Formats: sequence, structure tokens, C-alpha cells
Amino acid sequence: MSFLDHIHACNRWDPTDFLPFMLDGERLGMLRLAFADELRQWPDRFRVEPDRVVWVGAPDGFEARTAALRETTDALLQQGIISHLHGEQYPVTPGCRRDGRLLIDRACAPYFGVSAFGQHMNGFVRSAEGIKMWVARRSADRRVFPLYLDNLVAGGLPWGIGLADNLRKECTEEADIPAALADRAVPVSAVSYCCDSSRGLKPDVMYCYDLELPEGFEPHNTDGEVSAFYLWSVQQVMETVRDSSEFKLNCNLVIIDFLVRHGIIDPDDPDYLPIVQGLRSPLAKINSGQ
Amino acid sequence: MSFLDHIHACNRWDPTDFLPFMLDGERLGMLRLAFADELRQWPDRFRVEPDRVVWVGAPDGFEARTAALRETTDALLQQGIISHLHGEQYPVTPGCRRDGRLLIDRACAPYFGVSAFGQHMNGFVRSAEGIKMWVARRSADRRVFPLYLDNLVAGGLPWGIGLADNLRKECTEEADIPAALADRAVPVSAVSYCCDSSRGLKPDVMYCYDLELPEGFEPHNTDGEVSAFYLWSVQQVMETVRDSSEFKLNCNLVIIDFLVRHGIIDPDDPDYLPIVQGLRSPLAKINSGQ
Repeated sequence: MSFLDHIHACNRWDPTDFLPFMLDGERLGMLRLAFADELRQWPDRFRVEPDRVVWVGAPDGFEARTAALRETTDALLQQGIISHLHGEQYPVTPGCRRDGRLLIDRACAPYFGVSAFGQHMNGFVRSAEGIKMWVARRSADRRVFPLYLDNLVAGGLPWGIGLADNLRKECTEEADIPAALADRAVPVSAVSYCCDSSRGLKPDVMYCYDLELPEGFEPHNTDGEVSAFYLWSVQQVMETVRDSSEFKLNCNLVIIDFLVRHGIIDPDDPDYLPIVQGLRSPLAKINSGQ
Repeated sequence: MSFLDHIHACNRWDPTDFLPFMLDGERLGMLRLAFADELRQWPDRFRVEPDRVVWVGAPDGFEARTAALRETTDALLQQGIISHLHGEQYPVTPGCRRDGRLLIDRACAPYFGVSAFGQHMNGFVRSAEGIKMWVARRSADRRVFPLYLDNLVAGGLPWGIGLADNLRKECTEEADIPAALADRAVPVSAVSYCCDSSRGLKPDVMYCYDLELPEGFEPHNTDGEVSAFYLWSVQQVMETVRDSSEFKLNCNLVIIDFLVRHGIIDPDDPDYLPIVQGLRSPLAKINSGQ
């Protein structure tokens, strides 16, 4: 394993397996060919062309479009084509999160290949022995990546809540970090990637934060999503990321970004430039850019 | 002006104006069409094809290739096609700096469109009023961007010197920063861009460093390249970058990267993702990546 291997693992997809999902001339996502075929059952709603799928039957307006797509995803859920709903609403956007054209259930986002936005926070301590990082172990009952290692705090960004409020909420739920402390978190970068998954395509964006914690602070999980926390030296974190697959796939990228920004991965690493550039994938640039 | 405007200004070039410069099947650079035409005077050395220029007459070996290209650039200098020499040798590489296939004079690099590597250091102070940054004013006699604002320390990376040694040397020459203090500089990122210039193409890479300086420290220039230093609040630096063109073109990008990493530009900025992604240009990725 290497740092670049993790970046490549988060950017593994074949464009020929997907068709752009278009609305009003904008690309909102990418549909796997087999999933696009399922949409042929509604020829009045979706026009499946050789190089794209056009949502021709979309009503006007944010609310009406949300309801219309919900009707489609409910039907696909009943047919067993969509596996489950998550319950949180995500924006479907041709670009930034704020440019949502309608909402979609979080669990349905990959089927339509729409960008999901999240927040990941590195919790670290400056000690006499150097930087230490808090690492979380995911609970055994998590639907994805059970028992894998995770960032101290990480969560999706549902529609209708601001970045600061959502981070505060996640800090409370996941690690019992008081709001006053959570508010000291510094937004430091964004990592984007594009990955083929069992449900479809994930062209996702993670807003990254650093929170320097006092040496005496100990996180406690309050929502059942975390089974344990560890305070490791940054060297141990670096080696675990570099040499293993113990971390949830995309958390590796957040930590690699941390290691670069703190000079732990330095420019004498022959992979330095591909690492720095690889943390922001080009497709996400098209999809989540302007 | 905006942050993105500066990023776009450093990534302005038209691929149809340039031809790949090939050696042994590797692309080493990009030649402006008019410059490629000048190479037709040596048909035994360079084969100018519709979609590329192949260096067919290259001898074997690093030293011999360096000497052969030097012969060509000397002739072009005498013909007035190349304006001047700089005196420092840069690697000509299909990828990383260490993969140099031969050397070229620093001033000739843009004519051949080969990547130039440099180091830029943000010098900053944490004070009771927040972060302050040291800003340099370039001397009136600098060949490029005289009297523009600059990073506290910035310099090219000649062949044959390591990153730490070169940064220490630049810190001494440009700001009289003692080696023990310079060694505390943290490598934090790399910024790449690709820009059309009067001499040719600049697909360049800047390794970025942060050095936190004690409040009492004052830089002094020792090599005549800087006419003044200012200690500004990070807000003043941010506004100057965002709203003006007072900084040397590529220094804007180094400061924008600093502002992102320190949370001064935050994800509520609608341009956040294009900014973060735009600091690492795709062409430099092809040219400087693996």
C-alpha cells in the first residue's frame, strides 16, 4: 500500500459505465447503464439516449421536482432496485451545494451519481512528543465500513443546515465536543474524489477541518456510531494509513491531506505532487466546480 | 478582481498555440509554434511535425544532452530569439524534479515549456490581534515584476541542491532568517499552474512553506532583491490579494493557499471548491505528476 494507492482507490470508475443525467441542459449526475435501463419503464419521465439520460418529464420548481424524483425512487425501492432510504435530504446540484435544483434521499444519491457533501474533522493534540491524532473506531452495526477506523468527527451535510451548525451537531453527537470547543475548528481544505460503488457513482466532496484539542480532552460517543477512540502519535496514524486499509476508504484522503498540510508528508516524497493534486479529482471539479 | 481571477490569470494558455516537445517518447515541454519554426534550421536535430516536435538528434546521456541543448540555446541567443540567460541550471523533466533528463538554463525553460520548480514561504506571526503576515516589496531593478509585492521568501530550485538547503539559502539571502529559524519552516502544500508568457509556456510548480515567526523578528534583505518588508494583518493581505494586482502573479496563489489552510477563506465562499481545486492545475498534473 501507499498514500497514492488510497487516492487511486477513491478514484476508480470507468466513464463508459455511466451516462450523464441531464435536466434543463445541466448535468446533475451520472447513471450506471443498468440503472438507466430501469428508468426506461417511465418513457414519459426519462428519455434514455445513447450518450445521456434526459429527465424530460420534470415539473417546474424545487418542491415539485423533489416530489417527482421521490415518486420514482419510491417505486424503485419497492422494486428492490434501490436498497434503502437514509432519511436525510441531500441537494441535487450541477455545481456547489447551495445550487441545489431539488432534493434526493442521501442513500439514493449514488444511484443518480450526484455529488454528496460532507464534513470531516481531524482532532489533534500538540504534545511534548509531537502531534497526536484522535482516531475513531466505527461501531460494529454501521451499514458501511463497520469496525473500520474513522476521523474523530465525520458526517454528511444535509440540505438546509449551515456548515458551522452541522459541524457543531456532529461534534456533539460523535465525540461529545462542547460547542465552544467545536467552534475553534478551522476549515482547512476540501478533498474531492469520484468512486464507483455498489449503488452507483460517488463524485463526493469532503470539507476538511482541523481542531486542536487540549491534552486532557477525551471524546465520548453519544450516538452509537463509534465504538472506541484512540489517541495515536501522528507517525502511527501515518503508518496505518500508508500501510493498511484499516481506515474507511475516504478517511484516508482526509488524513493524507492533514499529513501534507502539517509537513509529515513532505516534498522529498517522490509521490508528493501526485498526492497533492490527487486529493482534488478532476471529475468532481467538473461536477462540483462553478 | 477575485481570488479565482488570480487563479485564472495563472492558467491562461491555448493548447493550440503549442506543440509537445518530445524526447524518447516522453513529453519534456511545450513549444510555441513560432519557436518550433525556429528549430527547423536544424533538421538533423529537431523534427517539426504537425502535432509535435521530436528531438531526434539528441546524444545519449545527461551531460551530452545538456551540452547539445546548450549549443542550440546559445545559437538562439545570438540570433536574438532567446532574450537572455539566467545562469542557474534547471532540470528538464517529464515528471518530478528528480527525474531530470538534462539541464537547461532557467531563463530558457519557458521557451521549451518545461516545468520550473520553486519554493515560496509564507512568514507569519500569531499575535493577540490574530495572524499577521510578512510581505516583501520587490526591488525596482528586478527583471520581472519590479516593485510588486512578494512572499517573504521565494526562489527557484536549481538542479543539484536539496529542498531544505535551498530554502535555508533563500531565507538567508532574502530575509536574513537564521538557519535554525528557517529550519522550522513547515512544507504545507504545492501549487501548480500553467501560464502563457512572453517567452513561452510556464507549467510551473511552487512548493509552499509556512514559517511562524516570533513577534519581535524583523527580516532584512541581503541580496538586493527586496526593497522593503511589511508586517500586515492577514485581513489586509487577503484584501490586497483579492482586490488588486499588487502581488507578483504567482504569489497570489501561494497566499490564497495560505488563506484556505488557515480558514481565512472558508467553505461558505461560493468559490471555495473551484479555488481549492484551481490551485493545482491539470496540465501541471500531466506534466509534473507520475
